[in-house]
Amino acid sequence: MKEPVTIALDAMGGDNAPQIVVAGANIARRRHPKIRFIFYGDESEIEKYLSKYKRLKEVADIHHTTATVKPEDKPSYVLRNGRDTSMWWAVDSVKTGQSSGVVSAGNTGALMAISMYQWRNLTGIARPAIASFFPTLRGETVMLDLGANISCDADNLVQFAVMGEVYSRTILGIEDPTVGLLNVGEEETKGNDSLREAAEIIKQIDFPGEFVGFVEGNDIPAGVVDVVVTDGFTGNIALKTAEGTATLINGFVREAFRNSFMAKVGYLFAKHSLDKLRSRSDPRRYNGAMFLGLNGICVKSHGGTDALGFATAIGVAVDMIEYGGNQMIADHIARLGLS
Amino acid sequence: MKEPVTIALDAMGGDNAPQIVVAGANIARRRHPKIRFIFYGDESEIEKYLSKYKRLKEVADIHHTTATVKPEDKPSYVLRNGRDTSMWWAVDSVKTGQSSGVVSAGNTGALMAISMYQWRNLTGIARPAIASFFPTLRGETVMLDLGANISCDADNLVQFAVMGEVYSRTILGIEDPTVGLLNVGEEETKGNDSLREAAEIIKQIDFPGEFVGFVEGNDIPAGVVDVVVTDGFTGNIALKTAEGTATLINGFVREAFRNSFMAKVGYLFAKHSLDKLRSRSDPRRYNGAMFLGLNGICVKSHGGTDALGFATAIGVAVDMIEYGGNQMIADHIARLGLS
Repeated sequence: MKEPVTIALDAMGGDNAPQIVVAGANIARRRHPKIRFIFYGDESEIEKYLSKYKRLKEVADIHHTTATVKPEDKPSYVLRNGRDTSMWWAVDSVKTGQSSGVVSAGNTGALMAISMYQWRNLTGIARPAIASFFPTLRGETVMLDLGANISCDADNLVQFAVMGEVYSRTILGIEDPTVGLLNVGEEETKGNDSLREAAEIIKQIDFPGEFVGFVEGNDIPAGVVDVVVTDGFTGNIALKTAEGTATLINGFVREAFRNSFMAKVGYLFAKHSLDKLRSRSDPRRYNGAMFLGLNGICVKSHGGTDALGFATAIGVAVDMIEYGGNQMIADHIARLGLS
Repeated sequence: MKEPVTIALDAMGGDNAPQIVVAGANIARRRHPKIRFIFYGDESEIEKYLSKYKRLKEVADIHHTTATVKPEDKPSYVLRNGRDTSMWWAVDSVKTGQSSGVVSAGNTGALMAISMYQWRNLTGIARPAIASFFPTLRGETVMLDLGANISCDADNLVQFAVMGEVYSRTILGIEDPTVGLLNVGEEETKGNDSLREAAEIIKQIDFPGEFVGFVEGNDIPAGVVDVVVTDGFTGNIALKTAEGTATLINGFVREAFRNSFMAKVGYLFAKHSLDKLRSRSDPRRYNGAMFLGLNGICVKSHGGTDALGFATAIGVAVDMIEYGGNQMIADHIARLGLS
């Protein structure tokens, strides 16, 4: 780590806040030795957990706030009435330069709305996108947009492709990532006008990664490309379908081992191997959805994650800050005349 | 079975045609004792395999055709130049009343185009849809559209909901199936205009099944509803993502058992249970995509399936014919004034 990085934490967001936020920060502190934190939230609640971690306390400040964004709050409501919430102040700290990025396990829509309102988009980016990465057959793949934009035009998709390419380099360390547009077939004639037009544009510009054209749904888990680009409607449904299917099959396997005495014995022998398998696709290792295309670094953690998962989300923010991901995106957009 | 049902088979469609078509018909013959077949394709090729099955031969005719639709042929090309193909004549036999339905493992786009051209839509149906069913946590779920329509308006989605409801009753035997519209959230404000409008219409009409509103991607494998309704773009990507994820996780599990000597021993103990698991989600048990909304019964088999999978696809056509699925759809559309 080159120099200290300060991360603002929405200590009141998520199912088990502020406990897992504080515990997660303590894990992240060990992984990133020069990191600093500002916790935004109820001071006495935060202090209750923070007092357990002496070293974390040495690198942490608390900024007391009096209100919390609720999971059911509409973004528009939060923009009007949420100015005393922990989420609002955590995002604000990036704008004022007190921190370099924010992590929250709170309400996704509100977090996106507050970040967009306070930070505005990166120069040249028409629409921010939500990006995440997950395990595949060949390694790890980034997908975006996962739900920020229900419909997208060709220019949006091209900008997503550039942002996803940079994100894959920055977070996964992949050189010359391969990038594909999600479609219902690989042929150039498939899909809607936005997709076909986006493919044409990407082929014509000096795209920073390797554009492979269209990919299909089964190519996502197969890891055929490093970056899958799609609109927020399709991306949200594809990601949730994949997560749900993984849960289903893992459940079937667990059930198979409970089926008979012989199967239970078999499980004892195979346990070590199966545990390694489980750890390979442990969702806590893939926690943290990045809001790309904003004048600031914002990572959304799953609301139900534990300390280990929250630490992963903090790590995503730290990597993006350290490797200057936003500057790389802005440079590409300007260089390619895509704004 | 009430009376003989004659199924037209495109004997030349699919990776291993006509062998698996003939062998699949022989399996279907045992399951449906009064069934008859007409094989469309190269007579000597078909005869080569048919001669192996004496009882099948007794209930089968061959209609010799001289050409075959290729996997890469565009639908528009086939409509202009495909009138001597096995696929064309198989579909034609339904129009002339020689058969009650057609099954093909050939080119999906061409099969849909030929069926639409020859049969036209069911009265009141604006767009046909492709429907399929697959195993979920709670049983089996039908999803449509899987790719016939890249974009859909509210009326299309409402008609799909009616067709999916009937299909679920007919093929899976589910009474009062639950039906959901696929969206990026369950709240009424989520998604695009078509989805919100479709939900409003279904709530207002005397919908034959139980409409539960919006469902999300993870609800598909969880089996939250019996019927998932979506546009063909999203449905195609969701289905392929689910299939790909199942393959990925199954691959991870297989790998885990090869990982160490202990794991291999464990596999031997658990083998019986794991085989049962595999058979539960065997894709051959779920082969056969139904083209709903046409004046005829057409089932598309996976091109790469084997005889058992092809027999399943034949069974789908037989069920839809026997239970009068198309008549039920037409009755609902007329009764509800949805045309």
